[in-house]
Amino acid sequence: MKGDKKITLTEKELPTHWYNIVADMTNKPLPPLNPVTKQAASKEDFLPIFAEELVNQEFSQERFIEIPEQVQDLYKIWRPTPLVRAYGLEKALDTPARIYFKNESTSMAGSHKPNTAIPQAYYNYKQGIKRLTTETGGGQWGSALSFAARYFGIDLKVFMVKVSYNQKPYRKLMMNTWGADVIPSPSELTEAGRKILSEHPNSSGSLGIAVSEAVEMAAKDPQTNYTIGSVLNHVLMHQTVIGEEAILQMEKAGAEPDVVIGCFGGGSNFAGIGFPYLRKKLTEGKQIRVVAVEPQSCPKLTRGTFQYDFGDTVGLTPLIPMYTLGHNFEPANIHAGGLRYHGAGAIVSQLLKDRLIEAVDMPQLETFEAGVLFARTEGIIPAPESTHAIAQAIREAQKAKEEGKEKTILFNLSGHGMIDLYAYEQYFAGNLQNYTIPDSEITCSLKDLEKII
Amino acid sequence: MKGDKKITLTEKELPTHWYNIVADMTNKPLPPLNPVTKQAASKEDFLPIFAEELVNQEFSQERFIEIPEQVQDLYKIWRPTPLVRAYGLEKALDTPARIYFKNESTSMAGSHKPNTAIPQAYYNYKQGIKRLTTETGGGQWGSALSFAARYFGIDLKVFMVKVSYNQKPYRKLMMNTWGADVIPSPSELTEAGRKILSEHPNSSGSLGIAVSEAVEMAAKDPQTNYTIGSVLNHVLMHQTVIGEEAILQMEKAGAEPDVVIGCFGGGSNFAGIGFPYLRKKLTEGKQIRVVAVEPQSCPKLTRGTFQYDFGDTVGLTPLIPMYTLGHNFEPANIHAGGLRYHGAGAIVSQLLKDRLIEAVDMPQLETFEAGVLFARTEGIIPAPESTHAIAQAIREAQKAKEEGKEKTILFNLSGHGMIDLYAYEQYFAGNLQNYTIPDSEITCSLKDLEKII
Repeated sequence: MKGDKKITLTEKELPTHWYNIVADMTNKPLPPLNPVTKQAASKEDFLPIFAEELVNQEFSQERFIEIPEQVQDLYKIWRPTPLVRAYGLEKALDTPARIYFKNESTSMAGSHKPNTAIPQAYYNYKQGIKRLTTETGGGQWGSALSFAARYFGIDLKVFMVKVSYNQKPYRKLMMNTWGADVIPSPSELTEAGRKILSEHPNSSGSLGIAVSEAVEMAAKDPQTNYTIGSVLNHVLMHQTVIGEEAILQMEKAGAEPDVVIGCFGGGSNFAGIGFPYLRKKLTEGKQIRVVAVEPQSCPKLTRGTFQYDFGDTVGLTPLIPMYTLGHNFEPANIHAGGLRYHGAGAIVSQLLKDRLIEAVDMPQLETFEAGVLFARTEGIIPAPESTHAIAQAIREAQKAKEEGKEKTILFNLSGHGMIDLYAYEQYFAGNLQNYTIPDSEITCSLKDLEKII
Repeated sequence: MKGDKKITLTEKELPTHWYNIVADMTNKPLPPLNPVTKQAASKEDFLPIFAEELVNQEFSQERFIEIPEQVQDLYKIWRPTPLVRAYGLEKALDTPARIYFKNESTSMAGSHKPNTAIPQAYYNYKQGIKRLTTETGGGQWGSALSFAARYFGIDLKVFMVKVSYNQKPYRKLMMNTWGADVIPSPSELTEAGRKILSEHPNSSGSLGIAVSEAVEMAAKDPQTNYTIGSVLNHVLMHQTVIGEEAILQMEKAGAEPDVVIGCFGGGSNFAGIGFPYLRKKLTEGKQIRVVAVEPQSCPKLTRGTFQYDFGDTVGLTPLIPMYTLGHNFEPANIHAGGLRYHGAGAIVSQLLKDRLIEAVDMPQLETFEAGVLFARTEGIIPAPESTHAIAQAIREAQKAKEEGKEKTILFNLSGHGMIDLYAYEQYFAGNLQNYTIPDSEITCSLKDLEKII
């Protein structure tokens, strides 16, 4: 081995600030709209269900926002995370490319989600909130928040997309072990859930439906707040601790990435690794490609429309300017549960529109092939979500080989797959398939809203 | 937070040598015996099923044995592991004690087992061996070896104790993902398995039975070797990388442990954390207590007999001088599958006989109570095996509080419990119990062999 396998940082090198990319965007993201008035939503539209400090961050234009000391202390349970040189994968691919990955699987919940779960629970705790709701797809976000909420003495109800609830019993048990209450969604507990069940009694759920339920429950009780694991600006910002660490680590490794890759569901791990590198692109003119990888079965970035749409299925949230497949879009039951979401957040959508980032869609079988190769060469069994980033890193490395070029590739390993092994079993059994979505299923149903943008 | 949460080492600080405690023992461990001749077994008795270099290590009296470069490179996938100050647990216990734990859950398999899986696969690979067998209890060892064997291009058959095979489907899937073949034991594939099944058709298996099957399969084919995840001297030695790192890290933290704690199944994680500290006791006269924690339901150290006994249930292995409950002992179906073994290895048994270490038995409910408290204060959901060490650390911390004494406690967190969440579910549902073993079930059945010691 020529150099270190892992490039590590000390706790003293833990970033003290999150990066708010809005400050550096020439074209700022469009504002969310109040769904009734169709006017730009204000902080007051968010305050009934979000902690005040999080709403301030959602609207902030400041470049850097300080990470509270108590949040930093909790980050230190597992952060800084290692940056790893994928020598084993490089050798298997026989590529001239250098492949690095940021290993976010080392957290207590096995993914990057605690990066935002902890500050969200913290700010609600500081505000005296005693109850939180949220939704979860693959279960990564719900489990991360379960630990954080419990740590700050807050009760938590998690609406878990039914297909994941059934496919991933261990994720539910993990949330229970940390002390949260987990409800399969759609449920009978909310009007939104009852409405879906009356129309589609066998609904396997979706992130959009689960958002509707969690938002509704929070909206009806002043003592209950809502939290979200992706999409919104403040959530993406909390994740930038990933990329800020990666920049320090790549410098220690004496390398600079030509391409930075993250899988894409609502955008949080992608933003985490990508936004700090985009700062170099936006403010220093560095030539860095930043690539979002979405499932072929949920192609909002590559095939969606850029328009205002709801963040949830029923239509309770503010309207968000997003690349969307339509808030009624029902994604196929792929195993990357965390990537089954119909839209992208405002910032990422604006960046894509301005061609500052790239987007790629990836077939399911290619992602599992990549995941197995990674497990057998690098040791870590990746989450089905993260295999999308690995698959793209492999494509980039193979292209470097074809072209005989040196190239430095950095991707985010957003989580491990210890709780997703059933998906691998299905893959080995030949039960998985690729899904190409017919145009007719892409249902951007608010055509009038297109005109607003 | 007063100091660092985690005390880390760089890859350059990774220990370059394993520690062989035999070199420093005044009373050397008694030799294994050939079961037919009852004479001291020689290297030749081991060579038919073990790699030569591992046999040399098994008999070695050298104090330090160099870790091969390729093994060090693979260790770097996750090593050095963090030493963690358990601030959250300390606060919850309101104790004056300082509690540290070595976090071995960060490996690809989620436990300390890769520390020996990698060198065992490596030495077999160097010898040109193409097929390996082994047994696994909770699945920690089998999954660790699955990655290591695959990495070196060796086919692997894992006999998995049937109760764990059924309780822990994800462990099996993990082994499959890395490419191993997993067989529930007792099986119809071996004479040993068929014999057990004919006598006990509903046998839920035991580590001892699974050892019999794996040894038999290796013995019958010259191209197949056997590997073991605990008990034997060379296995315990490979784990000393844990304690060697811990010594460097505790020095960095400016602390020295008064008590060092490991859970105890076959002895490997206990030896890993404990033996390097015992060197300080044996060679520098340091006053350090080293405590092994076993389940109340499998109390070989606290209630077993020190005599020669077989390592397996059927009686295929050399006779080992051990504290044993009898090789026919059938442990209760507790959830700490990795601790369900009837005996302790030769070194640990001699150390206990010479009162150089202590042993404690721990009731199952106390271990889960400790595990849940740890999960909610330190974030990491511990493996049911590791909760035994946590429970003892809590007892020590509570005692320090009662006595108003400062005390430094170090325990080994041998693994995480992400694959053991079913056990937590059973605990929360009130379905678990304590097991006190009646004397009549302790069946040291080779009474004539007692006289040899």
